[in-house]
Amino acid sequence: MSFNSEELLHCREVEAMCERVCAANCRLPELGLVTLTWGNVAEVNRDLGVIVIKPSGVPYETMKPSDMVVTTLDGNVLGEHSLRPSSDLPTDVVLFREFPQINAITHTHSVQGAAWAQAGRDVPVYGTTHADNFYGPIPCTRDLTQQEVEEAYEENTGKVIVETFRTRNIDPVATPGVLVRNHGTFSWGNTPMKSVEVGKVIETVCDMAERTEDLMGRVRPSAGEQPFEPIPQYYLDKHYFRKHGAHAYYGQPGDAH
Amino acid sequence: MSFNSEELLHCREVEAMCERVCAANCRLPELGLVTLTWGNVAEVNRDLGVIVIKPSGVPYETMKPSDMVVTTLDGNVLGEHSLRPSSDLPTDVVLFREFPQINAITHTHSVQGAAWAQAGRDVPVYGTTHADNFYGPIPCTRDLTQQEVEEAYEENTGKVIVETFRTRNIDPVATPGVLVRNHGTFSWGNTPMKSVEVGKVIETVCDMAERTEDLMGRVRPSAGEQPFEPIPQYYLDKHYFRKHGAHAYYGQPGDAH
Amino acid sequence: MSFNSEELLHCREVEAMCERVCAANCRLPELGLVTLTWGNVAEVNRDLGVIVIKPSGVPYETMKPSDMVVTTLDGNVLGEHSLRPSSDLPTDVVLFREFPQINAITHTHSVQGAAWAQAGRDVPVYGTTHADNFYGPIPCTRDLTQQEVEEAYEENTGKVIVETFRTRNIDPVATPGVLVRNHGTFSWGNTPMKSVEVGKVIETVCDMAERTEDLMGRVRPSAGEQPFEPIPQYYLDKHYFRKHGAHAYYGQPGDAH
Amino acid sequence: MSFNSEELLHCREVEAMCERVCAANCRLPELGLVTLTWGNVAEVNRDLGVIVIKPSGVPYETMKPSDMVVTTLDGNVLGEHSLRPSSDLPTDVVLFREFPQINAITHTHSVQGAAWAQAGRDVPVYGTTHADNFYGPIPCTRDLTQQEVEEAYEENTGKVIVETFRTRNIDPVATPGVLVRNHGTFSWGNTPMKSVEVGKVIETVCDMAERTEDLMGRVRPSAGEQPFEPIPQYYLDKHYFRKHGAHAYYGQPGDAH
Repeated sequence: MSFNSEELLHCREVEAMCERVCAANCRLPELGLVTLTWGNVAEVNRDLGVIVIKPSGVPYETMKPSDMVVTTLDGNVLGEHSLRPSSDLPTDVVLFREFPQINAITHTHSVQGAAWAQAGRDVPVYGTTHADNFYGPIPCTRDLTQQEVEEAYEENTGKVIVETFRTRNIDPVATPGVLVRNHGTFSWGNTPMKSVEVGKVIETVCDMAERTEDLMGRVRPSAGEQPFEPIPQYYLDKHYFRKHGAHAYYGQPGDAH
Repeated sequence: MSFNSEELLHCREVEAMCERVCAANCRLPELGLVTLTWGNVAEVNRDLGVIVIKPSGVPYETMKPSDMVVTTLDGNVLGEHSLRPSSDLPTDVVLFREFPQINAITHTHSVQGAAWAQAGRDVPVYGTTHADNFYGPIPCTRDLTQQEVEEAYEENTGKVIVETFRTRNIDPVATPGVLVRNHGTFSWGNTPMKSVEVGKVIETVCDMAERTEDLMGRVRPSAGEQPFEPIPQYYLDKHYFRKHGAHAYYGQPGDAH
Repeated sequence: MSFNSEELLHCREVEAMCERVCAANCRLPELGLVTLTWGNVAEVNRDLGVIVIKPSGVPYETMKPSDMVVTTLDGNVLGEHSLRPSSDLPTDVVLFREFPQINAITHTHSVQGAAWAQAGRDVPVYGTTHADNFYGPIPCTRDLTQQEVEEAYEENTGKVIVETFRTRNIDPVATPGVLVRNHGTFSWGNTPMKSVEVGKVIETVCDMAERTEDLMGRVRPSAGEQPFEPIPQYYLDKHYFRKHGAHAYYGQPGDAH
Repeated sequence: MSFNSEELLHCREVEAMCERVCAANCRLPELGLVTLTWGNVAEVNRDLGVIVIKPSGVPYETMKPSDMVVTTLDGNVLGEHSLRPSSDLPTDVVLFREFPQINAITHTHSVQGAAWAQAGRDVPVYGTTHADNFYGPIPCTRDLTQQEVEEAYEENTGKVIVETFRTRNIDPVATPGVLVRNHGTFSWGNTPMKSVEVGKVIETVCDMAERTEDLMGRVRPSAGEQPFEPIPQYYLDKHYFRKHGAHAYYGQPGDAH
């Protein structure tokens, strides 16, 4: 398809994207995932060649669909009177390009997720809440180097996420989110609202995991042993696959998982 | 009694069950017990031969009594146009069959309960809030084996709960809930709302207990001693029996305890 | 003064007490101090010879002033159609008799307070939030003996509170609350609402103190030292007396402190 | 400019200050930063020679702009019928005099901030949420001496804050807040609302930092090592300067940062 900017901005599908992206952004404070304006949601339509994203630094309470920023797949803003897009846009550009299976991305500084990211730790699979949603640990990226930070920080944040998944052979569909070291969470899915819900999953699972280790640690018989043990692999298989894939039986037929 | 499916679905008592079960499910997010759709409530009527349960994966905000799923005591769905029942139904089927004293069950992944379940620990009786509601520790089941998980996971979850109570000689009336290892909480009572309230009790008691151990541990004189001490048995007797049984004097006469 | 029961129940001052006690009870869930129905407020009028208290086990949402229970100073219920009073009434009877300076009492199982009570620890004065409201640690009582629990549990709860204050020479005006070991908090003041606010103070101070020790403990240079240090006495003097007594300069002139 | 008291109190700019200060005070409970009445916001206008501050001990729910207290730059109250100003006014007087770059100050006893203040610890820069808002650790002052507390407590609280910034060569614009040892937080900015938002930043960053150390500490290989490591300096530079200064690219052009 080929449109000029003005046509794109006012076509029905882009307006629908703006509505979905705005609604998903507004869900962030309702789910307790953001402080002040620290979080944003974006959606891509690769056929139309557009990304829709929250404007930078704008409060959720007064945000309207028409405030959403529409850009090309390279992150160039369309429309003369646009607000400035979220500063995390270049990260999303990389993820939308490298992970063709995902259509929407949420980024937050939610407290529990940020704490694990700041500690630089993967979140182990300690229970079925985790296993229902992530087929393996929630990975934490490495630090960016000084050069990576100084040259193209946001773009390199996307690249270090992709590197984490490729190097460790992780499937971004089965592991729909990541902790960016020192920073916060990125989560994704088919729709903006689904990516927000995965953000909520990460927050909840991080909270449970911190408490689990605390409770395990108090009765640990000796320091020499494996301190914190994840659940058996067969639990992970069972819980993940009862909600995902061809044999899923959780939710209603036709639900997107 | 004997009814055909259509009669059962529209009889007055089943409609009343649907209303109670829907209202109890809607109470879960109000009490902070659920994230997203992770929790459900069911009620049984053994005379009518029906179980009423939340549909799987449906959000609480828009749920109506007519969305509740009605099944036989074996868990077979009645009615052609029914939504799919919660995937935890086979667990409830076992519990309703093996614990004839209980009429309603709540299952959640509430954060504090899940943390103790993930740590695989019984919750000791550290105070009177616990003793008011549970006559002994809140037990945590063993892990299911690989075979148990793979063959009939949800049914075996019910069976491991029953095994926990039988093996350890625990009365499911005096101990109206359990932590399923790696997973979350099940709680029960005479009515759907009562089973939800017990879920809230578990969550609160788990939170208090985690903090109690934290505060106790800091002033523990030496590692060789018993680290965390439960309350004296006579406290447990006093608090439990002032709220339960023939000599209860808490609440109003005629209250169900 | 001398009234018969019916006159007392309908005199203007008792009706005003019922309104204040009901309003203060309803404030408990708003301030996050109660779970389900676990908390109550009472007020005494020694001239009229009455105590007004929450009915036992009744939810806050639907409570009306006319549901409040009116009793004599000995705790005998007035009025034929009264609901049953809170089971904590005999504790309040003792406190109102032994502490003539206080007019209202709040009892809760608030989570942070209960955790310190379950750990059996006084709350040290770690900061000015504490010092603004309590002139010294928040004391924790001893365990009741088996005999004390079995013979007259609630009355003996009052007695052990009084014993704590007398034995340790604590002034119940300068220390307007206590942790009852294994149980929860009692707080008091001139009015029902003030006693609720002190309950909120205890909850907040307990939360801050748990975190303070956590943060102090991580940088403690050696286990041999005094682990957790309270604030200097001159801070306690300054903060307490700028809010209380003849030289108070916090709040508006005429405020009750 | 030169006005008499009555003219000042009713001039348009002072009325606008009262509205801003009242609105910012009312934001404190909405953001979870205050318990009861423990927090206040003030604004200065150095040209007019006035400070506007919350009245002492007044609840936020019923506060009106006309309740705000207007004082001179020395803290002398203007207007005969004024309420008494917040007892923290003398601290603000010092800060407004010594830090000419700031126009508004928020003081709270928010729980996480108070815990770090009570522990007497600077908050290290553990992640980008911190770096986005503070160019370095959030400093914690020393204890006041007995003499400082007894002679002019609130004024000396201001002086010890100034001392902390001067002695340690900290820029109060790049570090827009402080923990006052044993006490709580002070934060500042160009406007009353901005100073409240910085208060929320401190609370969130303190929460994240406590959890980060908890999670780091569990996997620390040996006690001999540096226990808790802050983020690399180049992260701090990048995040702080993408939001602040001439090269900022976060938010919308013209936003005050």
